[in-house]
Amino acid sequence: MKQFMDEDFILESDTAKHLFHDHAKSLPIIDYHCHLSSREIYEDVRFDSLGDVWFGGMQKDGSCYGDHYKWRLMRSNGMAESLVTGRDDEKARFKGFAKTLSLAIGNPMYHWCNLELKRYFGVDEPLSPGSADRIWNQCNDVLANDPDMSARGLIRKSNVAYVGTTDDPIDTLEWHEKIAADPDVKFLVRPSFRPDKAINITKEGFAEYIGKLAAAVGKESLDNTGDVIDALVNRVKYFASHGCVATDHGLDYIPFRKMPREVCDAAFAKAMRGESITVEEAEGYQTEVLIALGRAYHRHNMAMELHYSCLRNMNERMYRMLGPDTGYDMIAQNTCGGNIAKLLSELDSTDELPKTIIFSLNPADNEQIGTILGCFQSSEVPGKIQHGPAWWFNDSKSGMEDQMRSLANLGLLGNFIGMLTDSRSFLSYTRHEYFRRIMCNLIGGWVENGEYPADEEALKQIVTGISYYNAKRYFGL
Amino acid sequence: MKQFMDEDFILESDTAKHLFHDHAKSLPIIDYHCHLSSREIYEDVRFDSLGDVWFGGMQKDGSCYGDHYKWRLMRSNGMAESLVTGRDDEKARFKGFAKTLSLAIGNPMYHWCNLELKRYFGVDEPLSPGSADRIWNQCNDVLANDPDMSARGLIRKSNVAYVGTTDDPIDTLEWHEKIAADPDVKFLVRPSFRPDKAINITKEGFAEYIGKLAAAVGKESLDNTGDVIDALVNRVKYFASHGCVATDHGLDYIPFRKMPREVCDAAFAKAMRGESITVEEAEGYQTEVLIALGRAYHRHNMAMELHYSCLRNMNERMYRMLGPDTGYDMIAQNTCGGNIAKLLSELDSTDELPKTIIFSLNPADNEQIGTILGCFQSSEVPGKIQHGPAWWFNDSKSGMEDQMRSLANLGLLGNFIGMLTDSRSFLSYTRHEYFRRIMCNLIGGWVENGEYPADEEALKQIVTGISYYNAKRYFGL
Amino acid sequence: MKQFMDEDFILESDTAKHLFHDHAKSLPIIDYHCHLSSREIYEDVRFDSLGDVWFGGMQKDGSCYGDHYKWRLMRSNGMAESLVTGRDDEKARFKGFAKTLSLAIGNPMYHWCNLELKRYFGVDEPLSPGSADRIWNQCNDVLANDPDMSARGLIRKSNVAYVGTTDDPIDTLEWHEKIAADPDVKFLVRPSFRPDKAINITKEGFAEYIGKLAAAVGKESLDNTGDVIDALVNRVKYFASHGCVATDHGLDYIPFRKMPREVCDAAFAKAMRGESITVEEAEGYQTEVLIALGRAYHRHNMAMELHYSCLRNMNERMYRMLGPDTGYDMIAQNTCGGNIAKLLSELDSTDELPKTIIFSLNPADNEQIGTILGCFQSSEVPGKIQHGPAWWFNDSKSGMEDQMRSLANLGLLGNFIGMLTDSRSFLSYTRHEYFRRIMCNLIGGWVENGEYPADEEALKQIVTGISYYNAKRYFGL
Repeated sequence: MKQFMDEDFILESDTAKHLFHDHAKSLPIIDYHCHLSSREIYEDVRFDSLGDVWFGGMQKDGSCYGDHYKWRLMRSNGMAESLVTGRDDEKARFKGFAKTLSLAIGNPMYHWCNLELKRYFGVDEPLSPGSADRIWNQCNDVLANDPDMSARGLIRKSNVAYVGTTDDPIDTLEWHEKIAADPDVKFLVRPSFRPDKAINITKEGFAEYIGKLAAAVGKESLDNTGDVIDALVNRVKYFASHGCVATDHGLDYIPFRKMPREVCDAAFAKAMRGESITVEEAEGYQTEVLIALGRAYHRHNMAMELHYSCLRNMNERMYRMLGPDTGYDMIAQNTCGGNIAKLLSELDSTDELPKTIIFSLNPADNEQIGTILGCFQSSEVPGKIQHGPAWWFNDSKSGMEDQMRSLANLGLLGNFIGMLTDSRSFLSYTRHEYFRRIMCNLIGGWVENGEYPADEEALKQIVTGISYYNAKRYFGL
Repeated sequence: MKQFMDEDFILESDTAKHLFHDHAKSLPIIDYHCHLSSREIYEDVRFDSLGDVWFGGMQKDGSCYGDHYKWRLMRSNGMAESLVTGRDDEKARFKGFAKTLSLAIGNPMYHWCNLELKRYFGVDEPLSPGSADRIWNQCNDVLANDPDMSARGLIRKSNVAYVGTTDDPIDTLEWHEKIAADPDVKFLVRPSFRPDKAINITKEGFAEYIGKLAAAVGKESLDNTGDVIDALVNRVKYFASHGCVATDHGLDYIPFRKMPREVCDAAFAKAMRGESITVEEAEGYQTEVLIALGRAYHRHNMAMELHYSCLRNMNERMYRMLGPDTGYDMIAQNTCGGNIAKLLSELDSTDELPKTIIFSLNPADNEQIGTILGCFQSSEVPGKIQHGPAWWFNDSKSGMEDQMRSLANLGLLGNFIGMLTDSRSFLSYTRHEYFRRIMCNLIGGWVENGEYPADEEALKQIVTGISYYNAKRYFGL
Repeated sequence: MKQFMDEDFILESDTAKHLFHDHAKSLPIIDYHCHLSSREIYEDVRFDSLGDVWFGGMQKDGSCYGDHYKWRLMRSNGMAESLVTGRDDEKARFKGFAKTLSLAIGNPMYHWCNLELKRYFGVDEPLSPGSADRIWNQCNDVLANDPDMSARGLIRKSNVAYVGTTDDPIDTLEWHEKIAADPDVKFLVRPSFRPDKAINITKEGFAEYIGKLAAAVGKESLDNTGDVIDALVNRVKYFASHGCVATDHGLDYIPFRKMPREVCDAAFAKAMRGESITVEEAEGYQTEVLIALGRAYHRHNMAMELHYSCLRNMNERMYRMLGPDTGYDMIAQNTCGGNIAKLLSELDSTDELPKTIIFSLNPADNEQIGTILGCFQSSEVPGKIQHGPAWWFNDSKSGMEDQMRSLANLGLLGNFIGMLTDSRSFLSYTRHEYFRRIMCNLIGGWVENGEYPADEEALKQIVTGISYYNAKRYFGL
């Protein structure tokens, strides 16, 4: 029996161990998509307690912010909301979580949590009801006394070369500017352009947001689809001047419906007046904006990330109580794969298709995505169109294996740009270690089983590429 | 090489063996969803022959009743229908089945059948063309001579603590009453409430059924949606007074469409007159009824089972010849996951969401279901919303592994309420043994591979919970 | 560590090795669905170079023809189109491919390519940047000097008993006639009937094709749905007289919509005039034609292959440049499984359902297909309705394992008719070896793990059946 989470955690063969320890382990991290706060990085924030940094919860301003993965788990174990997002008794919460985690066998959280405790806090035993007290004390000691347990310190000690934050087009990027100007920051922190609010024409707050977007480009108002596009493209350029190399789109599904511009403008006008518009009208507007943005991304050599098949805030009672991003989202079922291809084809037809990374929240879409890639690759860059790593609910050992096996079957695993955290926490970088172990184990298993030659040079290129060099080349860092 | 179906069948590691033999094997069975006849249990029926108890087939009244899993398999091997459901030559049928089963490598039937022969009939060799004669004779000897080979005897010797039958709202539950009053019956037999016929407003026989439902609540007629709801809620109460703790819904897909009550009533009136109604009207009516029932279930602390994504009776010629439940059903493809969440959200918004167990017949829905659970858990009971065990066509080794791996990735496997037979046969309890072996093997494999600590206390809690204690707690038995 | 691609390639257990080497390896190949040219077989063509036989590309007539699997892979590695389908520098292309293939770890191409080099060219080392020069020279030597490296020679040395080509209804089958009359051809070459162009009523070129179909049956024109059906049925008969035992349908999805014949005829007339028709009209016409063809197939004892869930030519720019079948196709998402069952039920209702083989390009449909089979099996032939082997994008180790595991779970793996190449290359027969190794490994693993008895007779029947005898029986060869 292997010891739990020992040096060779996840690594089942000698080749896997060799690939991880000798090639993957020490490479820097390129975390090209996360939700960290540039301000917190600049201000190098510290954390009051393990509850603070691990769980978060209700904030003083009434908003709710923190690790909704952990909240979901605690709710699944019947913990009261007062201990899940409430913060009156952080230690009771931690002990409730320890009890919960013991039941989470097979859940990636079990590994993530214990890896974080081990790597950042030096904890040597698994978290359990029996060890919870000791670990609580040890972690809080470290937080209080280790000068490196700050935002920047955690990034540094995680060997992170690049942090790609997620930012609204109207963001001034002031904290990014300050970080860039600070000679003490040796890692790169760059914004990513995420214009969802300008695309979600049927969602609450659209008109209000368009007003802010107008202000951001120094205009009184945006009056039609073309104005919105101009404003967004203006901001793409602004982001580019701040070193932005990636963009992000979070959409329920990917629309593609070419409509006359007049129809889109009429729909926009209705939406601005708060009137409802049809699905077809919404898709017409969205298609126009997506095409224009794709072209702008291509001009500025930014990668376009497409995240889809998520239904958000499905529990209305809790949404009213806690707001978004509090653990009430689910996987959707869509049949929009053809639309993705049509969007990429439209952009490609004028030679303006940007690098694209496709993520579906529904793992049943893996194979379809794998076949879209192959339709749009080109000589601009190897692996121009990428299947994004297993995302969110799929970010588990078997989820990552499935995504990589699918990608390997249908394309070139050797050109995969690899892992990102998508995280709101400074402690999540161990997920890159977890990913690299799983990747080395998968590849090592093939070699041990005689399915790929024990060709050291080729294997080193593949493993170091997926860990680091492919993303570096892809994003031009 | 491991011997076929030896003591350590399915158990690939020492930890798996330990967990099964020392923790799982001896626990009682809670079979919370099956299709056994309460009358047959009360009357303690015996069986004429192995053909009778294993296959069933055409009954004297012209109906066709029995194990459609086995019928499908025999048809796949080209056996004539006269040997599949016909009963003129039971021994020829059995020998044809033996020949068929030899080709069923990798099919759960291969394991189910041989486990049943071993546990209930003491058969020591696999069923094959060569052993068919011997086994036929041995089994029929046992059936004729062993006094325990009766309905009650089989339940007793299978260590069953709870049998949850499936019953129509209009059922008088007379046999359940008799069983409850019989001091010789030491196991619990309880009805489950399955009101499909009152919900399937577009299916044949709806108006006739509504008449019977009216009679069951002592009314001349039910005249609108509200009347139907009142009648059903009345029967929920009646079932509750007979110890019912679970309900069941078999739906092509889960609808959710809020419509004004007048529209639902108009649709109901049309359906009662035998006129056709639109999909939207049907869904409006169904949504009203489902919401009202969900609330009633919550009041009576009954769990709501939702079974969906099945297309039934797809072979018209055979349906006309044999009727329903004769082996002509298939997996559907749906995109109704969002509706499930909307239904649960609607019930949750007034704090009237019952415990819910979700089953899709399409395994591509596993991950989506895993993410619905997490949106509606609460402190009422740990694991209030459950992902039902691999159902029907998925009830195989890999199907169960997939369901448990998905559940583990996305929630708390440790709170899983585990297996049920969904069976029409008194010999199916070995499927619980099969499930427990697969579950222990999965968990044991993780431990052996260093993915979970060898923490005896935690593992015992998880394994005994999934085998027995979680269902006991969940259903309040 | 196992050596790469040694004698026991893919075979992980002693039972797997025994089954492959002693039962599967030496059996003839029945390749019941491929895209080889009957003319090239009759003319016994030879190949100019490895580039010619392995890649193909732009032809002298401006069309593009060859191995689009390899083209996709090279594009994924950023190779310029001039080296992908262009043929100015075959050796540079080959070296670029060698570099690409090194990154294709986990891709079935890695195995296919190296197996082809080993079996047909005697290459003893894996293809890599380092070995590319040597292998290029060795292969071209063999092509130039080995008299057996011709169309017929390759078929002979691959131990192929049956080649099923794919042919349009209007094909004269002249090359099939010549082959049949040539006593030197010891293997069978038979046409398959693929009437897609007569069914794709909404696609370009429909009217023109119908004109050709009319000519093929000696008529001036076909004027309505009935005329088309008569013409097709006429050609089915003609194909039958040339030994045709299989047919093929490539459809985006399987339609089933019964419409009055007048509606179909009106739609047909519009389509012939180049006017657009609705989806419903198109499906009405298609349903009529499919039902009539199914009945004709049944009369002539031909198997009906249904291939669906493919979106073709998704990159418009490249489609304009290179035409169809050049590597720009993708997996679709459909919910047409119910339609398949309705089509089969319609045919079965009059006892005119032909043998049917169902293939979806979307692997998420595997389990659904497995449940359709069981609804329509009969005593005509064991395994009358088949789940086709893992197709195209799924034709990988894990794809084949998934298809066989699904089929085993839901039906009788022992009656599976097994592999086909679906290939345009005379070098693809090693895919049968690859399939047989994977099949023996899967089955051997079950036996080693005690999940099926080590019953030599039963295992031999299953393994030789799937490799050869089941297809022989199924197609009546």
